[in-house]
Amino acid sequence: MNNMSPAPVPPHAGTVDFVSGRTRLYGIVGHPIRQARSPATLTYELRRRGHDALLVPIDIAPYDFDAVFPQLLKVGNLDGLVVTVPHKARAAAHMKRVGPMAAVCRAVSVLGRCRDGWVGEMFDGAGCVTAIESRGVRVGGRRVQLLGGGGAGSAIAAELARKGVSMLRLVEPDRPRGEALVRALRDAYPASHIFLGASDLSDIDILINATPVGMLDPDAAPIDDLAIPASVVVMDAIMDPERTKLLRTAEACGCVCVYGREMLESQVVRACDFLLRAREHSIGDFVFHPDGIS
Amino acid sequence: MNNMSPAPVPPHAGTVDFVSGRTRLYGIVGHPIRQARSPATLTYELRRRGHDALLVPIDIAPYDFDAVFPQLLKVGNLDGLVVTVPHKARAAAHMKRVGPMAAVCRAVSVLGRCRDGWVGEMFDGAGCVTAIESRGVRVGGRRVQLLGGGGAGSAIAAELARKGVSMLRLVEPDRPRGEALVRALRDAYPASHIFLGASDLSDIDILINATPVGMLDPDAAPIDDLAIPASVVVMDAIMDPERTKLLRTAEACGCVCVYGREMLESQVVRACDFLLRAREHSIGDFVFHPDGIS
Repeated sequence: MNNMSPAPVPPHAGTVDFVSGRTRLYGIVGHPIRQARSPATLTYELRRRGHDALLVPIDIAPYDFDAVFPQLLKVGNLDGLVVTVPHKARAAAHMKRVGPMAAVCRAVSVLGRCRDGWVGEMFDGAGCVTAIESRGVRVGGRRVQLLGGGGAGSAIAAELARKGVSMLRLVEPDRPRGEALVRALRDAYPASHIFLGASDLSDIDILINATPVGMLDPDAAPIDDLAIPASVVVMDAIMDPERTKLLRTAEACGCVCVYGREMLESQVVRACDFLLRAREHSIGDFVFHPDGIS
Repeated sequence: MNNMSPAPVPPHAGTVDFVSGRTRLYGIVGHPIRQARSPATLTYELRRRGHDALLVPIDIAPYDFDAVFPQLLKVGNLDGLVVTVPHKARAAAHMKRVGPMAAVCRAVSVLGRCRDGWVGEMFDGAGCVTAIESRGVRVGGRRVQLLGGGGAGSAIAAELARKGVSMLRLVEPDRPRGEALVRALRDAYPASHIFLGASDLSDIDILINATPVGMLDPDAAPIDDLAIPASVVVMDAIMDPERTKLLRTAEACGCVCVYGREMLESQVVRACDFLLRAREHSIGDFVFHPDGIS
């Protein structure tokens, strides 16, 4: 065979430069997951800070969650997770230790891997308040009306109470759920002024929608009012559509409007800080730093 | 508050363009996983074909494998897996259906997600033979000496038998393992000429190393011979170092040398074909096409 002309050694195969065997993994778990923005935004932030890392979408069906999730946490090169709808409460139940906001809300939005296991915290409320405050509006001392006391709503309510709003009015049609949340908030923040039920829009400074009304439906709104005082800052936690019916009404009334994507995007830096800091600590040593949730 | 000057709406957060919530996931499971090349090469191939997809490294420790692996298969947007050391045999046990090469080797290297579950096949042998044949050397009718009858060795032996080598000499120091493999190959390929034990290098056409001897050790070789006839084609399945002691000896002797990365890279297109084709079928309909393993 030495008198044949062998083909030359082939060149190396084509490769990409954004993933290799050494890339550290992060994920966002939810169902569905197609709409998630964290893969693009948090991957950007992790790489901007010099980490060879990717945050990938991980779709886990609700009926599989309790079996799949604890096993997923064993993947050796998985360093952190973002948790989205509908898994935030169930994910919290799998944590050995959660932060103070997660303890009030009984739900987590970000999970970091410490050297010896996982810790979780809830950043949805901080994301909402940071988005509002990034627009020059301090929430401390303000009168806030919050529509919806579900997953997002309870996180936002807890952060508003922590921030010392002068009055928090919670509008929650599920009365037992609303009453339970008000009790939990009063226990956690005894100095807060929290009430169930709407007040007139002329008596509030900030209106926040944390219900799903208006999501994927450009003509639905969580309030019937067509006239909102221009003095009211209006925030909608819904991301799709970006300009919900509520926000279009508020724009027309001359209100300062804060959009859902701002709530999400304001969490990117905070989530990244949390994820990277967890890796440097053990569960017992990890400090849920106030700056990490405010 | 309407007499304040609100900060302008912030621009959208920074993003990357190679991962989003819609990206389909593929993975390579192994332990360790840092050395894996499939993330860079198979991601490249999937994207070259127009798929919004990523193949990520997934490190599963051996003692966690049987708990984690079946749950990982439930992740809804996971479309396929590559399996590497040390999980190839155990992964096969979790498959509802495997292809003919996997059935002989009792191990899988690629898993595709059909509409109703997972199917697996073993491509290591085809990768080795394709790498050799890509250099203009037909294996059919040749006399081959194969060092090592473990995971990689049994896959290579099965493919050589399928391709109709005129003689296959298997050198396996673990005699029961060697004998079991020879029996399995004779059962699957009754026309083959398979024997246990080495012959003189002057009596063979192709020498293949499928032992780990030489891996991560530039001075170790699986044979003591310092003179290899120039007529012998020498292939080493080891990838690190690329130029093992065996191949440096063969180079010095003027042999045609086939490197470990060629074996891996020749599997990229085949693995990609398999992964993408599985998605179009149900388990029962899926055809393990001969072209897919030759």
